[in-house]
Amino acid sequence: MVRTPTPDDKFSFGLWTVGWEARDQFGDASRPHLDPIESVRRLADLGAWGVTFHDDDLVPFGSSDADRDRIIADFRKVLDETGVVCEMVTTNTFSHPIFKDGAFTSNNREVRRYGLRKVIRNVDLAAELGAETFVMWGGREGAEYDGAKDINAALDRYREGIDTVAGYIKDQGYDLRIAIEPKPNEPRGDILLPTVGHALGFIAELEHGDIVGLNPEVGHEQMAGLNYTSGIAQALWAGKLFHIDLNGQRSIKYDQDLVFGHGDLLSAFFTVDLIENGFVGGGPRYDGPRHFDYKPSRTEDVDGVWVSAAANMSTYIVLKERAAAYRADPEVQAAFEASRVTELAVPTLGADEKLSDVLADRATFEDFDVDAVAEAGYAFVALNQLAVEHALGAR
Amino acid sequence: MVRTPTPDDKFSFGLWTVGWEARDQFGDASRPHLDPIESVRRLADLGAWGVTFHDDDLVPFGSSDADRDRIIADFRKVLDETGVVCEMVTTNTFSHPIFKDGAFTSNNREVRRYGLRKVIRNVDLAAELGAETFVMWGGREGAEYDGAKDINAALDRYREGIDTVAGYIKDQGYDLRIAIEPKPNEPRGDILLPTVGHALGFIAELEHGDIVGLNPEVGHEQMAGLNYTSGIAQALWAGKLFHIDLNGQRSIKYDQDLVFGHGDLLSAFFTVDLIENGFVGGGPRYDGPRHFDYKPSRTEDVDGVWVSAAANMSTYIVLKERAAAYRADPEVQAAFEASRVTELAVPTLGADEKLSDVLADRATFEDFDVDAVAEAGYAFVALNQLAVEHALGAR
Amino acid sequence: MVRTPTPDDKFSFGLWTVGWEARDQFGDASRPHLDPIESVRRLADLGAWGVTFHDDDLVPFGSSDADRDRIIADFRKVLDETGVVCEMVTTNTFSHPIFKDGAFTSNNREVRRYGLRKVIRNVDLAAELGAETFVMWGGREGAEYDGAKDINAALDRYREGIDTVAGYIKDQGYDLRIAIEPKPNEPRGDILLPTVGHALGFIAELEHGDIVGLNPEVGHEQMAGLNYTSGIAQALWAGKLFHIDLNGQRSIKYDQDLVFGHGDLLSAFFTVDLIENGFVGGGPRYDGPRHFDYKPSRTEDVDGVWVSAAANMSTYIVLKERAAAYRADPEVQAAFEASRVTELAVPTLGADEKLSDVLADRATFEDFDVDAVAEAGYAFVALNQLAVEHALGAR
Amino acid sequence: MVRTPTPDDKFSFGLWTVGWEARDQFGDASRPHLDPIESVRRLADLGAWGVTFHDDDLVPFGSSDADRDRIIADFRKVLDETGVVCEMVTTNTFSHPIFKDGAFTSNNREVRRYGLRKVIRNVDLAAELGAETFVMWGGREGAEYDGAKDINAALDRYREGIDTVAGYIKDQGYDLRIAIEPKPNEPRGDILLPTVGHALGFIAELEHGDIVGLNPEVGHEQMAGLNYTSGIAQALWAGKLFHIDLNGQRSIKYDQDLVFGHGDLLSAFFTVDLIENGFVGGGPRYDGPRHFDYKPSRTEDVDGVWVSAAANMSTYIVLKERAAAYRADPEVQAAFEASRVTELAVPTLGADEKLSDVLADRATFEDFDVDAVAEAGYAFVALNQLAVEHALGAR
Repeated sequence: MVRTPTPDDKFSFGLWTVGWEARDQFGDASRPHLDPIESVRRLADLGAWGVTFHDDDLVPFGSSDADRDRIIADFRKVLDETGVVCEMVTTNTFSHPIFKDGAFTSNNREVRRYGLRKVIRNVDLAAELGAETFVMWGGREGAEYDGAKDINAALDRYREGIDTVAGYIKDQGYDLRIAIEPKPNEPRGDILLPTVGHALGFIAELEHGDIVGLNPEVGHEQMAGLNYTSGIAQALWAGKLFHIDLNGQRSIKYDQDLVFGHGDLLSAFFTVDLIENGFVGGGPRYDGPRHFDYKPSRTEDVDGVWVSAAANMSTYIVLKERAAAYRADPEVQAAFEASRVTELAVPTLGADEKLSDVLADRATFEDFDVDAVAEAGYAFVALNQLAVEHALGAR
Repeated sequence: MVRTPTPDDKFSFGLWTVGWEARDQFGDASRPHLDPIESVRRLADLGAWGVTFHDDDLVPFGSSDADRDRIIADFRKVLDETGVVCEMVTTNTFSHPIFKDGAFTSNNREVRRYGLRKVIRNVDLAAELGAETFVMWGGREGAEYDGAKDINAALDRYREGIDTVAGYIKDQGYDLRIAIEPKPNEPRGDILLPTVGHALGFIAELEHGDIVGLNPEVGHEQMAGLNYTSGIAQALWAGKLFHIDLNGQRSIKYDQDLVFGHGDLLSAFFTVDLIENGFVGGGPRYDGPRHFDYKPSRTEDVDGVWVSAAANMSTYIVLKERAAAYRADPEVQAAFEASRVTELAVPTLGADEKLSDVLADRATFEDFDVDAVAEAGYAFVALNQLAVEHALGAR
Repeated sequence: MVRTPTPDDKFSFGLWTVGWEARDQFGDASRPHLDPIESVRRLADLGAWGVTFHDDDLVPFGSSDADRDRIIADFRKVLDETGVVCEMVTTNTFSHPIFKDGAFTSNNREVRRYGLRKVIRNVDLAAELGAETFVMWGGREGAEYDGAKDINAALDRYREGIDTVAGYIKDQGYDLRIAIEPKPNEPRGDILLPTVGHALGFIAELEHGDIVGLNPEVGHEQMAGLNYTSGIAQALWAGKLFHIDLNGQRSIKYDQDLVFGHGDLLSAFFTVDLIENGFVGGGPRYDGPRHFDYKPSRTEDVDGVWVSAAANMSTYIVLKERAAAYRADPEVQAAFEASRVTELAVPTLGADEKLSDVLADRATFEDFDVDAVAEAGYAFVALNQLAVEHALGAR
Repeated sequence: MVRTPTPDDKFSFGLWTVGWEARDQFGDASRPHLDPIESVRRLADLGAWGVTFHDDDLVPFGSSDADRDRIIADFRKVLDETGVVCEMVTTNTFSHPIFKDGAFTSNNREVRRYGLRKVIRNVDLAAELGAETFVMWGGREGAEYDGAKDINAALDRYREGIDTVAGYIKDQGYDLRIAIEPKPNEPRGDILLPTVGHALGFIAELEHGDIVGLNPEVGHEQMAGLNYTSGIAQALWAGKLFHIDLNGQRSIKYDQDLVFGHGDLLSAFFTVDLIENGFVGGGPRYDGPRHFDYKPSRTEDVDGVWVSAAANMSTYIVLKERAAAYRADPEVQAAFEASRVTELAVPTLGADEKLSDVLADRATFEDFDVDAVAEAGYAFVALNQLAVEHALGAR
């Protein structure tokens, strides 16, 4: 049996995950509203370490200030009681029709200004609750029609918006970093900053990019057929992996938000391997929360919600143990050598070598035996079979 | 009838496009080898302005230096005779089995050094021929298996490789810029720098990133379900659209390299509209070559090759005329206003406004009538229908 | 300008299309409820010939019998007044949580029996209103998890359900045919009968398959990367194209339900060409309604709803005119000959030829000059360029 | 460690799999030609039970009759020596340019007749070698352009071709069945009979459909985002699962032909579960060969080829053991009950019940407590988590 999670595992959940009432594009809600306070208690019981939320998950849209204060006070109380950490906060700028053309990049300037206010208000709350990360998913920043959005102006406005928020965080002295969450499409036909890469390219153009990074979600990259592990690897390489959203997705289709491991299981193994064990040749590491952003299927009742929450953690724990054994196996280590995976950390030019030296070195070209070197195999399939068998616990 | 292209249209073609012998994953060559000299002449006759090539397209892999010199001399002669410009050169680091695990990021350091030599040699040729752009498509830089590639080390090596080449270009004083061509997969399971975005994020980490930009290909973005026009728009916004590869692709599947416009026709209209007319609200413009990177279908004979080359240019010319009419139509201009497309160029904060001013402005939040503003429509469908009808020449 | 539609065009719309309140997976309704009576009037004004509906579109779920009777009476009245035809009726077995695991294939037998009752009740209404087609989209018949559904039992139950309904139609003497609407996924992870093909294979196993055919939707096939025109062509070939759902989709992603022509425009041209002009070599024809199953984007207000409805018809009319010109063009006719498209209608064996004759005919194999025949091109690109230019109105 | 395969496992391999020289769309061969005789010996040593081949895999295209006879004699000898069974034979109608527009559906009638001859010749060989299945993958039967193929005529010709071959098999009294292998695209833009479903629908229209079934390939269905296990389940339900092609694919992209289990691992678990253990509620079973149609990656040398062949069998064996434990686990059995998976085998109508009885039974509709029934959950996530943990060997 799989061991029970503990706070040391740093598992966290969005309130909107377990709290999803299961209303979807083609159907009405199949579950009742869950009290966020109750959700925190149940997640704590299951062994979770942290929770996260959109403003509207906790405080219903349009609440009075008094109601808002009371709700937040109750929420702080349950956090204190349970020891659960509020590690990340985010803002809902996609559900209300006011945001139907986006928030920071809405064609309507009034909406952009309103969106900015909603976000800033929630930044204050995030800081107040001690969150370390402020996620921004611009789910409605995009278009269905190429003519409907001036992308140059949109990216200018997006930059203005993010830099304004980041500048505010700095001005207030908050210990908070922004993490952008990319997604290629849905609910818009095309969303701005559709992948990890587009967001990295965007961040490079910011004034306050030093406190802006990424929150990549498994399914969002896989919806574009991209490799999630490679994506977070590039974010790590760029020093920008601030947060992660773990879940499951089965190929390119609508955003499924399945339980972690219920999608591409082998990919999940390699994701956990990277998060827990780092790159084979060393380098930057991720040590933030193991955050689940999934949806209990619409077929499940409230009991099923908690079973599904636990399932995310169980699968992660199994894969973590498997990844540890994989790395510790001398056969795997030998296979990394045989496949020259470790050789890639060696610079192409020698320590004191200049390009002119390489150009003058006939062994690199004129006298290089191309065909002989080309013949040697990389034994990648053997290495991958070791990984598959370790993932399956079959070694 | 569509007008005939002229060199003023700045159409250019890769020698490997018309020269493709139609050998594919499942079949043998269906067409004979074409002499590159003949290809230049035929393209000139059809109205093309430029040609481009991989080293091995012009000089067969493994040629002696003497043969190479003779071939290049003949090539220069036909360029002079026809007035055709050699605007871009690129290196083949994917066909020979020596590159089966990539060139700059091969796990084998010897291969990386050999690859560097092959590239540098071709940079010299590019400069010698007066090319302005040096494209780098790392088609084999990637992996089928997550364990087979240390992505952190791979990106380090990729950076080392590109920076070495870029540094060489600067040292030599060549008037040449590097353009990276992203692709998500095929021939590798996952390719490094899979999209326009990933390449932008990568370039931001380079030492010599100032002379490194992008060469996005229509089909490569569409293979990931991404919007090509949005992709080149973000590259323009970042000042990195150095070159383009136009062709056609029908949804997410293998790389089809169809004739431009034979894939997603409406998307092609908006691509031409952006290239020719720029953003609605102004901003950076592309004025480089209109370069086609397509393959004449394997069903076609040599005559069909030239018909297909001409088809790319014809479709572009029709769409250019349609895009001009679209922008000039007062109804379209009014629709841009009605949809507030033009309003997006207005900064969210006023000229002298600070965030604190916005926070103090009750009209932006406390007194903002969310429901009233939310009710107004954006009339995007009407705008798009105008675009469709202009594309179809039906207005 | 595009000509105005008339009832002769046989355009029809689902009440749920214009009536969509724009509640989606990530957002609340952005438009008010539309009165179906008003929708019929507006559609009539725009030139539509027919309307269609799910039971719950017209009669809210859970209405009393008295309310239901009154609503239906009012609906009949407006049909009479406007001359609009109710050509198709369908049942909603997907919105209410009772159907969260499907209707005819729900694991819960009670739900299957309830679903059967809901469908039969609506069959009676369809017959009463003079509809000719009864569409069945089993949107919730499926699963997210392979272990959750015994596919063999599920197909048994699906067959039992459809045969029961079809048997009832025959017993009652209704002049009504069933049309199954395939879809690969969304809202379920995998839906039973995911494509036109799977539904054709299923129908072949029915007892009452003679009155069961298909209602293929553009976006549903394109969500699986399949060619819609090829799909309806196979349905026609099998004598099973009973109804069509026209709309737009941009590649493999969530179900977009865009306006017809706002997705893959060139594919839309060929779809219209097939519907209006039939196969090049003759054969079965479709002469049913031109039915639009689209959603006005969530960004649009009520005025935008009617603009979008009209846009479907306008694009269809333009493409119909273009397809007529394409077929009438002698150059196109010559291209069909050159590409041997017309030769495919000639049987492979001669009229009185037996296989033994072919086997004995050395010209077919032993003396066949493979290389010479292989050399000839098919000129498909030239033919397609003619189609593109006709679609664009550029010839 | 995973146990070694034996002939009892019924594993078989195509000669073209291990024999692939690793020439791909973008690169030259990276491995030498393998002698088919040697391949049979090596596969036998690894524990394989059977081999399969295309005519041209064994006998090079264009061989003289004498060479052909000698090669076949040698092949029979090695089969006898090793005890390896030749269980399936297929014809290559896609590599030579003569088939660039297909074989049975080529627009050129001469090519169709030649293709028929090539197929019939190989049917004789299949029968002679004792093969039970004759696979037909129509890889070039399709088009890139909708105008290039009259689909109605194409399906007529396809039917004519298959019925002619099937009729010949019957006339000759061969104990051989035809298995059609569907694929959505690649090498053609759209291939006829793109999915399991389309092929089932097609077979239903054949004269000799009784001896025509399917050979579904994992990657081919997954290239369309379809669920392979559901696909073979429908084929089983229709009595048409004659043969299977096991391999690995990572989402919608080019045809990867990875080792079985190196693609979607959880899907592979459910595939093995269905093949080995049948449907939960009983029904038709598959007991044919476990046939692998994969490609050793181009990065591998000849040693790597044999490692990769063994990997397919190892993964299958592990998953077979896991699936057995999954079905035997009382918790899983209880979960099937809790999720009502088993209830789906119960007909919706009672044994002697007529629809009129159901219509008269108020408990099914008028008195049915929709909301109460809707509230109950299906516990599908709990069931799936059991499957994931069994697959991972974590229970």
